[in-house]
This record gives sequence, structure tokens and C-alpha cells, in this order.
Amino acid sequence: MTYLEKLTAIREQMKQSGVDAYLIHSADPHLSEYLPAHYKCLEYACGFTGSAGTLVITQDFAGLWTDSRYFTQAESQLQGTGYELVKLRIPHTPEYIQWLNPEYKVACNYSLLSVNLCLLFKANQVNSIHADFLDPIWKNRPALPNAAAFLLEEKYSGKSTETKLKEVRASLEKSGATAHIISSLDDLAWLFNIRGTDVKCNPVVLGFAMILREKAYLFIDGNKLDIPSKESLTAAGIEICPYPSIDSYVSALAATETLFIDPKRTCTRLYQLIPPAVPVIMGINPTTHLKSVKNSTEIANFKQAMVRDGVAMTRFVKWLKENIDKEVITELSASAKLAGFRAEQEDFAGVSFDSIAGYKEHAALPHYTPGTDTDVVLKAEGMFLVDSGGQYFLGTTDITRMIVLGPLNEEEKTDYTLVLKGVIEGSSAHFPVGTCGYQLDSIIRKPLWDHGRNYGHGTGHGVGYFLNVHEGPQSISPDNLPIALQPGMVTSIEPGIYRPGKHGVRIENLVLTVTAESNPFGDFLTSETLTLALIDTAGIELSLLEPRHISWINSYHQQLILEFKPYLSEEELSWLMENTTLNT
Amino acid sequence: MTYLEKLTAIREQMKQSGVDAYLIHSADPHLSEYLPAHYKCLEYACGFTGSAGTLVITQDFAGLWTDSRYFTQAESQLQGTGYELVKLRIPHTPEYIQWLNPEYKVACNYSLLSVNLCLLFKANQVNSIHADFLDPIWKNRPALPNAAAFLLEEKYSGKSTETKLKEVRASLEKSGATAHIISSLDDLAWLFNIRGTDVKCNPVVLGFAMILREKAYLFIDGNKLDIPSKESLTAAGIEICPYPSIDSYVSALAATETLFIDPKRTCTRLYQLIPPAVPVIMGINPTTHLKSVKNSTEIANFKQAMVRDGVAMTRFVKWLKENIDKEVITELSASAKLAGFRAEQEDFAGVSFDSIAGYKEHAALPHYTPGTDTDVVLKAEGMFLVDSGGQYFLGTTDITRMIVLGPLNEEEKTDYTLVLKGVIEGSSAHFPVGTCGYQLDSIIRKPLWDHGRNYGHGTGHGVGYFLNVHEGPQSISPDNLPIALQPGMVTSIEPGIYRPGKHGVRIENLVLTVTAESNPFGDFLTSETLTLALIDTAGIELSLLEPRHISWINSYHQQLILEFKPYLSEEELSWLMENTTLNT
Repeated sequence: MTYLEKLTAIREQMKQSGVDAYLIHSADPHLSEYLPAHYKCLEYACGFTGSAGTLVITQDFAGLWTDSRYFTQAESQLQGTGYELVKLRIPHTPEYIQWLNPEYKVACNYSLLSVNLCLLFKANQVNSIHADFLDPIWKNRPALPNAAAFLLEEKYSGKSTETKLKEVRASLEKSGATAHIISSLDDLAWLFNIRGTDVKCNPVVLGFAMILREKAYLFIDGNKLDIPSKESLTAAGIEICPYPSIDSYVSALAATETLFIDPKRTCTRLYQLIPPAVPVIMGINPTTHLKSVKNSTEIANFKQAMVRDGVAMTRFVKWLKENIDKEVITELSASAKLAGFRAEQEDFAGVSFDSIAGYKEHAALPHYTPGTDTDVVLKAEGMFLVDSGGQYFLGTTDITRMIVLGPLNEEEKTDYTLVLKGVIEGSSAHFPVGTCGYQLDSIIRKPLWDHGRNYGHGTGHGVGYFLNVHEGPQSISPDNLPIALQPGMVTSIEPGIYRPGKHGVRIENLVLTVTAESNPFGDFLTSETLTLALIDTAGIELSLLEPRHISWINSYHQQLILEFKPYLSEEELSWLMENTTLNT
Repeated sequence: MTYLEKLTAIREQMKQSGVDAYLIHSADPHLSEYLPAHYKCLEYACGFTGSAGTLVITQDFAGLWTDSRYFTQAESQLQGTGYELVKLRIPHTPEYIQWLNPEYKVACNYSLLSVNLCLLFKANQVNSIHADFLDPIWKNRPALPNAAAFLLEEKYSGKSTETKLKEVRASLEKSGATAHIISSLDDLAWLFNIRGTDVKCNPVVLGFAMILREKAYLFIDGNKLDIPSKESLTAAGIEICPYPSIDSYVSALAATETLFIDPKRTCTRLYQLIPPAVPVIMGINPTTHLKSVKNSTEIANFKQAMVRDGVAMTRFVKWLKENIDKEVITELSASAKLAGFRAEQEDFAGVSFDSIAGYKEHAALPHYTPGTDTDVVLKAEGMFLVDSGGQYFLGTTDITRMIVLGPLNEEEKTDYTLVLKGVIEGSSAHFPVGTCGYQLDSIIRKPLWDHGRNYGHGTGHGVGYFLNVHEGPQSISPDNLPIALQPGMVTSIEPGIYRPGKHGVRIENLVLTVTAESNPFGDFLTSETLTLALIDTAGIELSLLEPRHISWINSYHQQLILEFKPYLSEEELSWLMENTTLNT
């Protein structure tokens, strides 16, 4: 079936059901960011492969609402599909709501609709019903994944499921709740110390959980676990139930329970199964909060993962700088080489997201992923942006470095140095307990703002432990999200400057929030940089830095050399020393 | 009647009405910050004279909930009144709501209860009714003020009431509203270009307004205006009605109207008079937004007011420094001297708030106002904090300076310099259009945070034009208020460091938000410092500053000398030059 034929088939069903507008959301019943093939509905319907977007279909219009990251890609992928690109002004907002005629009868698959979005529909008088017009026409739809899953040993997780369940129950009790449904896969993976390969890059397993005061149910495909794992879960007081049976358990909730759900992380279909007599409390999942604060084992392991990842990065940068003039290297082949260096590392379990590897003007597209159609040869000039990461049993990494391949012009050097200055300001800042990401955000942007530069994306996101590379609840962004940074949180700091058609700069480190000092003014926090990999000194314009920035860079590089010493050859080590010297 | 007798009389009425808890709010029917004597209910009931607090009375408890600014004062004023002090953890929050038993029948005067707070009661299941148990027992209650009012000429206001009404109506139309009630006195004063002396420090007139598409009603005591002023308002299409008749106009609103009100700036009593058939839209008053963006006349005048205020400040500081060893000067007498220098200035119309004048440890109380019981003699050592301001026909000023009276210890110099650094960071920062106060806040606090210091109050507030010294909607604070700074806004920047029992530092300038540059990264704003008065260089620890901070200080002082030249004597001018030289 062509995209146009699919569109016609959808419109036919809409007519039969009296539906004026049909919406297709980029989601699964767990409201995941990265989707199993079974739920790649946008790709099936119109060929669009971006990670965020909504299709809106009426009888005389079909459009994809997506954000600036995907404008170029969407324009090309939507050619001849019958869909038009509608550019979002604010990423991640349902701007199509204002476009919808208030008289419309709107339908969408409630398994892919978060409770939050459904409530927003109601508040905006969007008259919606559940309907799935895709499944009936989707020939050879990929099955749900059935890959094996495994339990993470406590030497990796640092905390048993029993302890985690106790913490979750204590949190529920505090909210006045007695029952809890978890739909989000990373929350599930954290709570049950379970990992799998159901979703690309995210080591999670499809499932749901229901936590009561005395019982805990895990709804997964039982075939994914071996017998010892199942026995271990049972011993921890967890009953394993078939994945689809979550429905009947939710429907059968006793009216004496008070249910806690996360409206951002629960789908409307499940929500509608809750018996009306059951009071519902809404908030961020307790597991989302608990998971974000890494325990001491996770922190120690994270630091080991960073050494491994950094060793791979060092070898990659050395190889690239030494071979740029000697062999044909492209964005794609360089990316593959880096993946190779990572794969050599102990405990490596795959990449944590599709690498962004952009040379010169390609780096100006913040989410550019090279393809065979866009790949270019790297030359001994300009900068190469590589944003990549690995999944290790010891943690998840996410790092962006600019590799200076040859001479830079003044603008490139200024942009590079200001971005680096932002990273240093954010990483070295002290801030009182209670400080939120939006307060750190402007501290990081200030060096750029003062030179009339800025970037259109957030500054940082939480990162999971051998889990999703994007995790909540904290973030660093201009948005006024009232989530305070807490000791133990791992968050990225990644400012950038993008000049379309010219170049792009982004530098990204993961930092651990740690305590700094307590005094009569209160308790202060600061950050410890976890990411370990050289910051190319060839791009630095020293006149833009103050002495404290230069000290920071030098200490950082001295730390690398100490940490990497046991793992690098003498030749690699001396290359690293030479290439991290900052002549002032 | 003693406070205890009043409390008994209130409790007697509570019993008769079956009320379990009676609340007394610090407010008037206009939700003003500064109250006419008629509405000083807290002072009448318990003697507390602070500007913020709530009394909660039950049969076996009576308490005052107030914030840390007033702990010391309240403890002393409440002695023997029957009221206990309850310390607020978060200023300006109704924490007593959680204290109230959910079974209580609660009463309060709905004329003093904002719609916002009433909605919060409902959301928290507080079962409240209107009752006034104070008026029946208040012998010789001060009458409502009846001082004369006057219209502000357009050379001061910069915009006619006709134009302002057009702007308000355009804003209402945008929100889908056809009618509007204004209760807040500064909004009223701005819209009708009217000023008066009904409230101390705030040059406002008691009144309400109702704006319809074709008509505008001003509800004030008609005796306050002379005949030409009334004729001028009538000519602008405004009908003057008696102050109390707002009630009948609200009650008679036609069901065909859609009413816009500001729930923070409208009292519940008035809200309850709105006919149920009239749809209500809630939001910030259009006048609050419009008033915050000063027009070109106001800006030009503001700059003149700052020169006058700065000349007075210069003479004051010179006098103080030259006489500290020669005569007995106290906090109170110094404060009076400054008021005298201000009063000599053309167009001066009174002070904009009660001066804060704290020597040494008194300065550690951010809102300390000297009284005859606390007054101390200033000596040739340590620092003297003066936070003061004037009302001029040309604008409203609010300035805080530290005057170094003699040798400082290292801690004092460090604190002083870090606070100054915060002011400079905030005043010189560039930021993109759309930046909110909470983003500037952390930029200003960063120099303090980096040295483990902080302060418990906000960093800045909007300032009116010959109006209230505190005005909305913008503010600079860690709170995540989503109000963007706009060109034309006048806002204070006033970080501080307070060491109880030792010393306190605060430096405050008013800044004007202005455009900085437009480029492919967007439109950027910055600040132009309006306040003109020397910053005592004797307190500066140069090693804590970067060259750009020193340049800022030098340019600022050069500007003072240029601006003040026409108004200062040669001797004053050469004193100023000597005392603003920064030896590096």
C-alpha cells in the first residue's frame, strides 16, 4: 500500500465512524520516546522517521506537526505522501489543538494518548473518542518484541527490588495512595532491576506493574525471563502475570483502594479502565524521583563506565586526527569507528542513541544523523561534531565533543570557546539546595547571551543508569519546571551554537549533583563532572576566557590522564598529554 | 478596649454565628499592599504593624502567621495580646490553610479576601463564609480617607486616558471580554492619570472602575476632584459615580457581557455580586501589563527624577561622611537628613516608602526601620545601609546604598563586593526576548552562591511611575513566575547578604529594560541603569572583581559626574570625583 492509499483507507474508516479528524501520536502504551517497530505508526502512515510528531487527518487535509529539528527531514520524507508539514513554534506542544475546529468529532488511539494530553483535550473542548484506524489496514504489522530479558545483579543496581518496593510504598503512603500503576518502561526496569532489548538503545522490557500495599504484580511476557530470574522475582514477593492481563487487574481494582498514577506516563485507555469508584491521585511516579537519585553503587559504577567510554573516545579522536589526511574518512565511517572503539570496552551493551556525527554545516542541524544520502568526507579543516553514547552495565553515557580537524576561522573559534565557557560555568557553579534546572540554565547561557548568541534546545536532561539516555524528572532548560536538582542526580550540560550553512558547536558532559558546603546561609550543591574525554584545545580562543576557566580546563585534563593511565598505551598517553596542553 | 478584650469580643460573635475559625487578612477591598488607616485591621486587633500577615482565631487559639522579616517585631508587638506568632516558612503563602481543621466553619471579611485566595480555599476544602466581626466592635474606626486628588498632566503621564482606554479595550477584545472591573488602586491611577494621597507613600485614590465597550465608569468620592478635573474626565467619556455604587453596577451587569477580572486584584465580595449568568474570564489586569511598560515621556522623566534623587543622595553621603566624627548622628537623624535633601528637589512629592536605615547589625534585618526604641548612634566604623526612595511627579525612586563610615573587616568587604558583583552581573547581562525574571535571578545570585552566600528575599520588583514602589507583573526571583521582561519595564536589582548580629549588605539600583541587538540568533535585551548615586568604593575588595566589573563601576561613576554637573557646586563635584575614584 502506498502512503496515499493508506490515507484513503483511514479517511474511509473516518467517514464510516462519523469522525471529522483522526490523530496519530508518536507513542506506545508506555508513552515511550523510542518505540518498538510495532508502534512506529507515523513511519507506517507517512514515512516520517523522526522521534516526535503528530499526524492530523481530516477529509480535506493531512498534516504532520513536528518541531524544528525535523523540518528538513520531514519536508523530504513527506513528499508525495498526501501529508503537509506544519511547523511547531514550541517543540513538544500540541499546537494542533488550536487548529482543530471545535465542532469536530476527533478520534485517536487511546493507547497512545497520555492522560495529560487527554485532560488537555478536555480543557480545550476537544471532543474526542478512541478509535484505531491503523491496525485494521496494517498488513504484516511487526509483532511485539519478544527478546529475552534478564535481572541486573545488585553489584550493578546497588539496591534490591525489595528495598525499592519499600521506598515506593513509603512514597505512596505519603501521598495517601494505596495502589499504583506503572506504565513507563524505564521506571519498571529500575524498580524490578530488569533489563532487556525490546526497544532500540533503551535496555527496557515491555511491561506494566501494579503495586498494592501487600502485593506487587509485574505484567510481562513470561517467556522473556529464565526460570531462576522468575524464581528470584517471586521470592521478592512479585507475581508475574501475562502482559495483557494488566487490563483485568486495573478493571478489578477495589473501591477501597486509592490509586496513584502519573498522567504523563499512563495512557488514556488504561486510565479509562479504572473503576469510577476508585479515587485517583495524580503526580510524577515515585520511581521517577527515586530512580533519578543514583545510589552509591550506581555512582561508583558510573565513574567506571565514564573511564571506559573516555578511553574509547580518546582512541577515536587520536585515530581521526592522525588519519584525516591519510585515508578517506566520512561522517558514517568515523561514527562506525567510534562504535568499534566502544564495543572493545568491557561491559559494553550497545549504543545509548543513534550517533549524531556532523561535519561543518551538518553540525548546524542539532539532531543530524548521517545517512548514505547525506554522508560527506571529512577534510583537514573545520570542526566535526560527534554526539554519541554507550550503554554499559555500569551506566549510560552521552557525550558531545567537537573535533578540530584543521584551521578554524575566528567565528568558529569564538563560538567554540563561548560554548565551552557555558559548560564550565554550569559545571563549576555552586547553588543552594532547592535550585531548579531553570536557574542553572541561564548561568550556562550567559556567556553566549553576552555575545548575542543562543540555542533553541534545552541545556540538559537526566540520564539513566544502564537505562534511557533521557530520563526525568529534572531538566536544565528555560522552561519553569519546578524540579529541584538533588545530590545523586546525573544530568547533561550541553549548550550549543548553530549557524545554518556554516557550522555548529555543541559540547556535552554529564555531571553528578553533589553537596558543596553547609553554612549559616544554607546548604549548597555543586556538580562533579562525570564525563571524561579530552576537550579539543585547538578550538579555544584564550582571550575569551578568564583564569578560572583555564584552571578548570587544565584540572579536567589532568584528571583524564590520571584516570586513563591504567588503560592507555604509553604512546596513547603521551598523545593525550600533548593534545590537552593549553598554552597560556 | 485592650487586645484581649477585642479578642474576647470577636470570639463571642464567632460563638453566636457558629464560626469555628475567624481570619483577619492584611488587605483592603483593593487588595493593596499599603493600607489606609480605616483598613489597618491587624494593628487594631493585635497591635502588629507589619505589612503582611494573617490572624487566625479559634476559641482556644489565636495566632499571627507572618514571614521572617517580622519575626522579631511580631514577637515584641504580640506580648500580652493573646496572639501567638506562627512563623511562615515561605513568605506570602497561606500556610494556615493546612493548620485549619477541615471540619471548621471558617469566616472572614470577603472585602479583604482576594478571589485567588478564595479559590485556593475551595481547592483545599476550606468551608468559608463572609463575616465582619471587627467593624461592630471598632469604636472610633478611622473614616475612609477624603484627601483631594488631581489629574496628572500629559507632560508627566505621556499618554492620555483616552489612549489608555483604547489600549485596555483592545486587550479585552483579544481575551474575548466585553466588560472589565478594576479594583487595584495603582491600575486605576495609571488608567485615569489620577493621583492622590489616600494611602501613605502610594499616591493613589480609593476607587473602582468598570470598563465596557462604549462606556467607562470611575467610582470615587466625587468631592476629591475639582470641577475642571471632573470636566476633563467627562470629556474623555468617563462617568464619575459614587465610590459605593460599584456594587449596584456589578450586580446589574447584563448577561450579554463577558467580564474580565484579575483574581489577585479583585475581592471576593465584589466577585460574588457578579450575576451568575455573566461569563467571567480571569487573568492579570490589562492595565497591570500596560502600566509596567513605561512610555517615552515616562522614561525621559524617570531619568530626570533619578538625577534629582541622586543629587540628594550625593549631598546626604557627603554630609554623613564629613560629619560622622563631628556631631551626634543616629539612624533616625540621618534618615531625616536624607529626607530633607530629597525635599529640596523640584517636583518632589513625598517618600515612596518608609526608609530602611540600619547601622551594622541592624542592617542584617532586611526590613529594619529605625524607631526611637531601636535608634543607635553612627560611628566612624562599619557600614550603614540606607534603602529609601522618593515620589516625584517625574517618577518613583527606590535606592539602597551602603555607606562605609570607617574601617571594614575582611568579611564585610567580601560581602560588600560580592553583592556589588551581583548587581553588575544583572545590570550588564544580555538576554533574549522572552527571558523571565527567574532567569536573571540566578545570574545575579551566582557571584554570591559561588562563595556560599545567599539571601532570603527576591532580587527585584517592578516600580511604578509616580505610583507604587512595588508593582507587577514582573519580578526577579527564584520563583518560576512566567512573566517576560520587556523593553520599557523598570525593575529593581537588589541582592543582599545578611549576617545576624554582625552586618548586612544590600545594594539596589533601578534598571530599565532596553533592546540590545538583533541578529540571526534572535532579539536580545539588556538593562540601562536608571538609579544614579555613588557606590561607595571604600568597601570594594578589588581581588574579587574581574576587569569588566571594574570598568562598569568606573563608567557608572563617570556618568554620575556628567549628569550631576549642572546641579552640584564645585566643591560637591570635586568631592564626588575624589570619592568615586577606584584605584586599581
